[in-house]
Amino acid sequence: MKSPIAENIEAIAGYTPGEQPPAGTRVVKLNTNENPYPPSPLVAKALADIDCASLRRYPDPMATAVRERIAEIHGTTPEHVFAGNGSDEVLALATRCFVRRGGSAGAFTPTYSLYPVLSSIRDVTYLETPLADDFSWHTPDFGATPPDLFFLTNPNAPTGIAYPAGEIRDFASSFPGTVLIDEAYVDFSDGSCMELATAPDNGNVVVSRTLSKSFSLAGLRFGYCVGPERLIEAMFKAKDSYNLDAITQRLALAALNDLEWMRANAANIRSERSRLSAALVARGWRCTPSQANFVFARPPSGDAARIFAALRAKGVYVRHFNLPRISDWLRITVGTPAENDALLAAL
Amino acid sequence: MKSPIAENIEAIAGYTPGEQPPAGTRVVKLNTNENPYPPSPLVAKALADIDCASLRRYPDPMATAVRERIAEIHGTTPEHVFAGNGSDEVLALATRCFVRRGGSAGAFTPTYSLYPVLSSIRDVTYLETPLADDFSWHTPDFGATPPDLFFLTNPNAPTGIAYPAGEIRDFASSFPGTVLIDEAYVDFSDGSCMELATAPDNGNVVVSRTLSKSFSLAGLRFGYCVGPERLIEAMFKAKDSYNLDAITQRLALAALNDLEWMRANAANIRSERSRLSAALVARGWRCTPSQANFVFARPPSGDAARIFAALRAKGVYVRHFNLPRISDWLRITVGTPAENDALLAAL
Repeated sequence: MKSPIAENIEAIAGYTPGEQPPAGTRVVKLNTNENPYPPSPLVAKALADIDCASLRRYPDPMATAVRERIAEIHGTTPEHVFAGNGSDEVLALATRCFVRRGGSAGAFTPTYSLYPVLSSIRDVTYLETPLADDFSWHTPDFGATPPDLFFLTNPNAPTGIAYPAGEIRDFASSFPGTVLIDEAYVDFSDGSCMELATAPDNGNVVVSRTLSKSFSLAGLRFGYCVGPERLIEAMFKAKDSYNLDAITQRLALAALNDLEWMRANAANIRSERSRLSAALVARGWRCTPSQANFVFARPPSGDAARIFAALRAKGVYVRHFNLPRISDWLRITVGTPAENDALLAAL
Repeated sequence: MKSPIAENIEAIAGYTPGEQPPAGTRVVKLNTNENPYPPSPLVAKALADIDCASLRRYPDPMATAVRERIAEIHGTTPEHVFAGNGSDEVLALATRCFVRRGGSAGAFTPTYSLYPVLSSIRDVTYLETPLADDFSWHTPDFGATPPDLFFLTNPNAPTGIAYPAGEIRDFASSFPGTVLIDEAYVDFSDGSCMELATAPDNGNVVVSRTLSKSFSLAGLRFGYCVGPERLIEAMFKAKDSYNLDAITQRLALAALNDLEWMRANAANIRSERSRLSAALVARGWRCTPSQANFVFARPPSGDAARIFAALRAKGVYVRHFNLPRISDWLRITVGTPAENDALLAAL
């Protein structure tokens, strides 16, 4: 007996996890935009303070304490805050909640490769809007059929480019659907669109954040978003009952109570980003003006695939995308000074 | 600007979390089927051994180590095992993956109240098959339109009744869709249908388990399922990229390495279940033959709602469902001997 599988799931490619070096191998891992430094000492303390016996109880399904802290940080109220199992869950729920039957989602190209996958899983159409030649902003023109949901990664990945806040504001104010501004990398940039999400008259802007990059907590899985109460409420309806475990809630709260540590960490990485970009430019590479914790760089030869493989053979992992317009480029996570030096030496 | 919300999400009721007593209040909490004992000492040790600095890295997206252990426990291979963020995620993914466009899911009534909610979120029809008067098994007859997915909670909730394994096998072998046997409570029962899931010729049976009950880890959010490789593969396609955080994977593995502890714990609870049922029967209550970590009991007056409220006023929380056929009944989680005595004294 072979039972049926949903058509849209059957149609998508098998899951391919990002490359993780086998345990025990010593590599310079600059391929998945992880933070090279450990999380705040407050997180370690919160971890040490977890009472294992308390795990027998269900966690708070509303993640109240951590949502209150997030609201405080952004000058809003917890009703405007959703907290999820990584921004993965936030983005998946947005696709599920903000796109109507037979509707569509969209984004610029190139951008984060998860959005088309989420659209397939939601079984809706995905509309691509090509960026300008230099990957910079231009206002999308959807004609008569705008998508219900537009994902806007800002700063963008894998280009690192931040879009002008005024253009985003103007776009959102005339867009009839939801604009989800994915600010995964915002703490490494000069600005944020959070004030669009917290504005009292906001009806369609949702801004998402993650603890995976600037807070050094990719292993914890915690993301959140801020937006209009009716959109946040829809996400609560569609989420799994207990989507955030008790430990994650406690550690996320500890991390969010140490913004000073996060800012110092981000400043370090920005400074290394400048140094790494300058060193690549000095070798003839082209670098985008990245505002993220990676550089996006084109080798003089344009032979990114070959350099990717050669670096890998030397134990230096970076990211190469075999995709239109960006197959000549490499995305290199900013590591510690020693890791960045190792990369430069390997080149 | 008011942006659209998916019709099926708009249509469902707002999320109502289960009642959690405010922090600091001393109550006898027998309302959410939590285990009254702490998890295995191996879990506490694994927690103490977590290196906080390692959280800067993404977790294993395939949960390899813990899936290998699960495969070993059930005599199968990891390709037949999916691990999720609580069985909540397992059940949600099943609804997303195993029901076709315009298809339906179904279950007996009464049963776990999450299934119709998951069906609404997936935007598919939900078919109810009433159980016999005494809540016992009868083979469902779907006529010409069987659902794509049938949820079978075994032992059932909130009745605690276990169905005969032979009947389940016969039903599954002729059912054209997927049978998801939700064994959340199986460790408190006399048997399991796991051998249907691991049989070499199995094409449509998926058995799900959770660490929330018998392993005392409701706060950790870890569930899994075992089934045919093509169905498990579909779930991997549809899951969030990193659905299980690094700490949860480590602690789940530790718990699954101490089955002896779990079995001793479950034996304690079974013995208390007998004592509690007998004490209620002695007071004129009717009890189902529960095989779970709760008793399902009807007071002689049938006035379950009033008794629920009176117990609550005395600081004893049990569960009352204001639903057809079961509104005369209470579901009472088996607590420690002292908690059960407190309940009996309050009655």
